[in-house]
This record gives sequence, structure tokens and C-alpha cells, in this order.
Amino acid sequence: MNQAATGQTATAPHGLEAAMRRALALARLGPAYGPNPRVGCVLLDPDGRTVAEGYHRGAGTPHAEAAALTDARSRGIDPLGTTAVVTLEPCAHHGRTGPCADALIEAGVAAVHVAVGDPNPVATGGATKLRDAGIEVTTGLLADEGEELLRTWLHAVRTGRPYVTLKLATSLDGRVAAVDGTSRWITGAQARAHAHVVRAQVDAIAVGTGTALADDPSLTARRTDGGRFEHQPLRVVLGDRVVPDGARLRGPGGDLLTLPGHDLDGALRALGDREVRHLLVEGGPTLATALLAADAVDEVHAYVAPVLLGAGATAVGDLGVTTIGEAARFATDDVTRLGDDMLLVARRLKPRETPLVEAQPVEAHPTETQPGRPARQTQEEI
Amino acid sequence: MNQAATGQTATAPHGLEAAMRRALALARLGPAYGPNPRVGCVLLDPDGRTVAEGYHRGAGTPHAEAAALTDARSRGIDPLGTTAVVTLEPCAHHGRTGPCADALIEAGVAAVHVAVGDPNPVATGGATKLRDAGIEVTTGLLADEGEELLRTWLHAVRTGRPYVTLKLATSLDGRVAAVDGTSRWITGAQARAHAHVVRAQVDAIAVGTGTALADDPSLTARRTDGGRFEHQPLRVVLGDRVVPDGARLRGPGGDLLTLPGHDLDGALRALGDREVRHLLVEGGPTLATALLAADAVDEVHAYVAPVLLGAGATAVGDLGVTTIGEAARFATDDVTRLGDDMLLVARRLKPRETPLVEAQPVEAHPTETQPGRPARQTQEEI
Repeated sequence: MNQAATGQTATAPHGLEAAMRRALALARLGPAYGPNPRVGCVLLDPDGRTVAEGYHRGAGTPHAEAAALTDARSRGIDPLGTTAVVTLEPCAHHGRTGPCADALIEAGVAAVHVAVGDPNPVATGGATKLRDAGIEVTTGLLADEGEELLRTWLHAVRTGRPYVTLKLATSLDGRVAAVDGTSRWITGAQARAHAHVVRAQVDAIAVGTGTALADDPSLTARRTDGGRFEHQPLRVVLGDRVVPDGARLRGPGGDLLTLPGHDLDGALRALGDREVRHLLVEGGPTLATALLAADAVDEVHAYVAPVLLGAGATAVGDLGVTTIGEAARFATDDVTRLGDDMLLVARRLKPRETPLVEAQPVEAHPTETQPGRPARQTQEEI
Repeated sequence: MNQAATGQTATAPHGLEAAMRRALALARLGPAYGPNPRVGCVLLDPDGRTVAEGYHRGAGTPHAEAAALTDARSRGIDPLGTTAVVTLEPCAHHGRTGPCADALIEAGVAAVHVAVGDPNPVATGGATKLRDAGIEVTTGLLADEGEELLRTWLHAVRTGRPYVTLKLATSLDGRVAAVDGTSRWITGAQARAHAHVVRAQVDAIAVGTGTALADDPSLTARRTDGGRFEHQPLRVVLGDRVVPDGARLRGPGGDLLTLPGHDLDGALRALGDREVRHLLVEGGPTLATALLAADAVDEVHAYVAPVLLGAGATAVGDLGVTTIGEAARFATDDVTRLGDDMLLVARRLKPRETPLVEAQPVEAHPTETQPGRPARQTQEEI
């Protein structure tokens, strides 16, 4: 866990870990949406005292390391000889800002401690560049926490496809509407308000054309007073039918992108190419089923109301599951009560691809399955 | 709330309320199952100090008031002139023990303060008897808490039918089994352990013959080590098919009662006649659907696993609900995470019958429904 202890730094390992926790907290101050990762940086003097801090405030603003160097200089402190504690490996590429690795080298920092290596092919190489300049570099300090914070961004960069969160809002018996199609409201006001906050944290929201035409949704992120959040996600409609003029999807809100056809993987890659890191899928059952059947759902947000319908459309259709062992099983991350409803947040059980950095994948929260039951339970089961 | 303040007692209202809270806590020490209510009693001296306590430990043992009087005498205290604070109106009938009202009169208590009046037709009249003997009596002190504690017993005594708790254990999409019928295990070990604790707190468990034959359940209440709890509920099978010799239901555990036919109301009344106060219904979907359709479910325990099946048997069948406004809606009492699963406990929204005592029915936790949506939401809904 504390790989930093293997580095030859003057600062005690405990001090480095505390600094990394602070850097992670700083990173969380940045926006959850956007093409860039949330990154925090703390500069320590040779005695291990924090002398400057910075974090990334979103695309077009300085990276965390640059922000921390600026913070130091604005306090009249020369960063020469300081130790940089950064949640993500400093970038080595010229993007909208210059490479952070160069900035740290020019500033003369003595050491750089990193939580998570940068898997981004256009930005990676920062650690090598720093080492080549004679700077001590360690990676892996609080790597699990770093991976957790960056999980949607890391997933998108590693796979070229957005992290997909599937939202379900159902009755206790898994239905999304009554027989006549009415569904307003199965869940209550608190659940809906929560779902709008999630919308304001993602890059894009997708629905199928069926839902777009049947429900005429706006897919905007709104406050409980009805006003819109500052950040509005891209609105994506998947399928061939045309969203008519006058549809709410063409009204105020995020940009509208229609992706015709039924090539899910192609659609996800197209969104990945547009730097959509986190995609929220809000329905309907046809799209949810296709994504689940393609094993393309990374996280499930299930809002469940204390309601039984007994009939009506179900949240998901046939997944090809015929026996319990084949079920699409997720690992619960959190359970929350929202008014009369409950929200279960669960994640993929297995990582889809091997991470490029050596670390525990954040999806690996194994569920308590019991493939081999104890002998007693085979005799005395229910 | 503090109707006791209207009584002419020497003890301050605040002291009486504290004593009633203590009496309620004592009552909770008694068993949740059994024909008798859980009752607690505190005796206060004229200065308001607690001098004795008692609670009912289950059928065949002294009632709370008798236990408190015995406690006083065992301490060498004469209960003459004390004030009795009791969670339920003292009984006026000769059951397995003598009437508590007589015992209090004989002991010479000066006043009796009660949380909940006794709706039991064979036991009621205690307050009148006490008043006729010149004792000051008030009712309604912490009545809501008293009703909550006694809700299953009060329901059974008021309606002649047990309080019905329906247990559901489903996937997120409301399914209880995969297409091939396999269902072990949708929910995990913690959820199953919790369900066994609930079994140990009820009077009876019911299943339909379909479940009895398909699953061969034991319907015993077991600890996580596989051992059985001391209290084993009555096992009830509803329907016409015969439970075969050798079935686990005929093995060690509670008594087995088969109720042929499909007269649900008759079956519930038969159980009520046997003093079954709390019935746990564990399935299957046919029985659950019939109870829901008959509006006979008082409480739902929904264990929901982070699993999607997409097909397979659903927890409930057709309830005759065609539009969202007709849905069977419950009021959430509690949401708990149990390992990877979540448990939602919800109760009836409306009382089925007018309570016989004047009090807020415990079922009346109105949900946040929005029959009339604000104008903004009709323009901007999803």
C-alpha cells in the first residue's frame, strides 16, 4: 500500500500519505464531468510541511501541478527542492496547457510521488521524463483511492469507451410502467432530485428513440426549484427514428447528438472519440437490455419504490440468462434511502480489461457468492 | 401528546413520560411472538421515584402489572399509594392469570397511567373497573409509541386476522427465479440470516402448496451456525395439494398446519382464531399475488439483490393494476443494507379498519405522492 516508502525521500512515509490524502481531497473539488481527470497536487518543503496546493478546475484551466506551482510563487515561495505529491502521473504532452512534467522539472522539484500512473497514450511518459531529469519518482501511493476517484476517466481512457452508468427507476417488482404505460411517478421527489444531481455530474445522457418519442424527455439536469444546473450533459439519442422538431430534446439544455443504427459498440466508441468519459443511460428497457446483454454496463443506479404493479413493462428484457449462475450480478457500492424510495449503486464485478497500471481495479469488490454450499444447507435449505 | 397532564397526579408530567418510556423499553424485553401483547409496567412512589418494574415474558407467565407488584414486594415495598405506569390498559378478565385491574385495586395503587387502551373484547374494561374503585386513570400517554410497539398484536385483536408480513427476495428486476427455476441464491448470506431472525419473531410462516412441493422448504428459524432458534413458528401450508411424507415441512421445527381450499379470508380468520398474531408469508408468487390482490398485506419485507435476470418468475403476478395510480403502494419504514443486498421494510398506507381506540394508527405514514404536479413539471418532466 505504501510503495512510497521504497523511495529515497527525506519526508516520512506517514507524511507523504497524509499529503496524498489532501491531494485527493483537492482533486475532488474539480468537476466530475469533462474530458480531463480530476487531479490534486500538494507541494511539501524539505521538512515535509505543505507549502502550496492546487487542483484542476476543468478543461481549459491549469493542471493541478501548474496550479500548485503558481500557488507557491504567489506566496513568495520558490518551489526549488520541494516534493510534489500528485494524484495522477504528471502529463508529458502539449495539450491546451504545457506538459506538467516540464513545469516540475523547470521549477526544480526534488521528488514527485504519484497515486495513479497515467494510462492516456497521448499524455503518459511523465514519470520517465521526470526520472530522466534526475527527479525521484514513486507511483502507487494510495493507488486504490486514486483509482476510485478516477474510475470513470480511467475506464474511458483505457477502453476508448465511456464508463456506462445505467439508471433504473422501478417498482419493487421491477416494473418501469403500468399496463397503460403510465409511470409518473413510480419513484418520489427525493429520488428524482438525486437523479438530476447525477445528470449534472456526467458528460452525456443517452436514451433510445423509443423513449425519446414516447416520453418526450428534456434530459436536462435540473435543481429542485426547476432551474437548470450550470453543466448540462450532452443529450444522445440512439436509434434510427427521427426526434421531431418541437421535441423537448431540441429545447434548452445540452447539445443533441443522434447516433443512428444499432451498433452499440460503435456508438460507445464514437462517444469515446468525443471525449465523453461518463455516459448515463436512462432508458428505455430496449436500450438497457442491449447494453446489459453486451456486458457494457459499468455501474447500475437502481431507484426502487415501495410499489407493486404486478404487470407492465419491466426494466430489462431477455438477457439470455436461463439459470441463476448466469445472472448479471453487480457488486453493491452503496445503499441509500431517498424518501420512500431506496437507491442501490452497484458496479461491475469483473474488470473488462486489464488495467494498464499495476493496481487493484476499483471494480473488484467480490460479492459474497457461495458456489459450494456447506453440507448442512444442502439438507436444510429454505 | 401528553394527555397525562390532565390527570390530577402528584407526579410531574415529564416524570410520567419518562416512566412510560421505561415501561415501553421493558415491554420490548418480552417476546415478539405469542398470543399475548408485550407490556411493561413501572411503579412510582408519591414522589415520582421508580420503586418497581415488571414486564410480560410471554403466555403462561405473570402479566407486567403483576410482575411489577411482585417486584415491589420482593424489595419490601408496599405498593399502596403508588402510581402504575403501564403500556397497555390493565386487563379485566380471568385468563391464565387473574385480572390485572383487580390486582392493582387490591394493592391499593393511587393512579394508573396507560399508553394504549385494550381493544381485546375479552380483556377490555380494566380502566372502567379501576375508576369504579376510585383510582385515577389516564390513557394516551405516548400512545403512538405504544401503538407502534403493539402494532401486530393490536391489528390481530382488532381485525380477528393476523398481521401479515410478505417477504420478497428478488433480483433488481423483480424476479424470484431464473427461467429454469433456479433461485439459490439470488440474495446473499446476510439477507438470509436476517430473514431467519424475522422467522424467529413471528407466530407462523405460510407458503402455498406450489412452493411447499417445488422447494421442499423446512420453514424453520435457524441461526447462522445452522442451529434452530428456541422459538419455532407454526408452519402453515395453504392449498389443496398434499405435503408428502418425508417433506422437510414434516421434519423438526414448528407444528405443521395445512389449510385446504383457496378462501384466503377464511384461512386468515382461522389463524386469528388460533391466536396467530403475526404471519410471515414466504411465497410463492401465487400466494403473494392473492394476498396483495385481496389487500391483505400489512407489511412488505423486500430483500433486493444487485442482480438482473431479464426473465424468469416474477415476485408477484397480475394484481389487476392497469394504471400507475392504482399501484399497490406502501409506506417505507426502513431501508437497510445487508451485505450486497438491500432490505426495504414498508407498511400499509391506510388502516384497513378504524381502530377501536382513539389514536393515530401506526400505518399512517403518508408517502410523498404528488397527485397535482406543479405547472413547471408538466412542461419539463423527464
